[in-house]
Amino acid sequence: MNLSPTPRSTIKRLKDRAATDRAALHAILDSALICHISVVVDGSPLVLPTGFGRDGDTLYLHGSTGSLSLRTAAANEICVAVTHVDGVVYARSVFHFSMNYRSAVIHGQARQPEGEEKLHALRAITEHLAPGSWDHARQPSRKELAQTSVLALDLSEAAVKIRAGGPGDEEEDKVADTAWAGVLPVVQGWGAPVPSADLTAGWDVPAHVSTRD
Amino acid sequence: MNLSPTPRSTIKRLKDRAATDRAALHAILDSALICHISVVVDGSPLVLPTGFGRDGDTLYLHGSTGSLSLRTAAANEICVAVTHVDGVVYARSVFHFSMNYRSAVIHGQARQPEGEEKLHALRAITEHLAPGSWDHARQPSRKELAQTSVLALDLSEAAVKIRAGGPGDEEEDKVADTAWAGVLPVVQGWGAPVPSADLTAGWDVPAHVSTRD
Repeated sequence: MNLSPTPRSTIKRLKDRAATDRAALHAILDSALICHISVVVDGSPLVLPTGFGRDGDTLYLHGSTGSLSLRTAAANEICVAVTHVDGVVYARSVFHFSMNYRSAVIHGQARQPEGEEKLHALRAITEHLAPGSWDHARQPSRKELAQTSVLALDLSEAAVKIRAGGPGDEEEDKVADTAWAGVLPVVQGWGAPVPSADLTAGWDVPAHVSTRD
Repeated sequence: MNLSPTPRSTIKRLKDRAATDRAALHAILDSALICHISVVVDGSPLVLPTGFGRDGDTLYLHGSTGSLSLRTAAANEICVAVTHVDGVVYARSVFHFSMNYRSAVIHGQARQPEGEEKLHALRAITEHLAPGSWDHARQPSRKELAQTSVLALDLSEAAVKIRAGGPGDEEEDKVADTAWAGVLPVVQGWGAPVPSADLTAGWDVPAHVSTRD
């Protein structure tokens, strides 16, 4: 299924950087820890980072019932961005400096799942943040569930943009050959797990943490 | 100088995570490659990633004159978020799973610098993205300058939020001792520089790239 069905989610600039398949969208979402959610509050824009999960073509966003933005978001349109920076692109002219990145921007009207779907959404968010944890840790009590709010957003209106590779320098700058050109990759990974200071002795780090991809 | 002078930039939830000094704001901005800028377009929220730089208490945001959002942004209020994820917090109950992070959210009316300030802003943006590059690469021509647009945003209305440390589990879950608890740090760094495929032979990677912090 293709993306970009509406004018505002159709990429107008640098069209060669637009990806149009749903697999690219899913891959960008699934490999990110956070998203940035934007809402309009009293006519002004507000953007905040938050955790999320995905099930098929539904994005689940995590929040608290005390959060103004999510209360506003549930009643209004939202926009969500997920961005990976893969490298800094050094060019022969400062005009062509760039970043390699993969980004997704999603528009839509959010809804607040309740009951079974809310639990399902929390599981998706937890497993996205920390795979293997839903069945390892204690699951939410009724009171904890009531204190948590979740938004669901359909992924139908989405734009994906990807840049990869070296700089797009001018021919004259290549000939002049007066500056280095290339990419400095950004690498991200996991450090060594740090057990909680109040963890009892005898715990090994479980495999779902120690071998996390 | 303290932050948070307005109701909307005063953090209401989890107040212990709010930082109130300007040094914390600057540190979060200076160590990030991108920000997310949010604007209201036809009444709907839009959020996009972009590069930026900082000079004192002015944030400079990078854009192209072809970009709808920056044209809109220059005439309206914007909101900018910069977020670092430092670790995934594994708790004994899924309710207390969290992330360690440092985030800044800035509100304000942007303006479009011209002339000398525009060049100064582009230098700040370039040096932020790739320190040492402004004097190494060719600087912008008059035509390139005209094709670039920059927004300036005052950092006076900003909120900083920081979470660090282990999970805040319930006493009953600590006693039950049925799940591992701790932090899996997120580490980010630079990979080996990749020279451009069309770079002439004989170039060593310059020190401002090879020894980048």
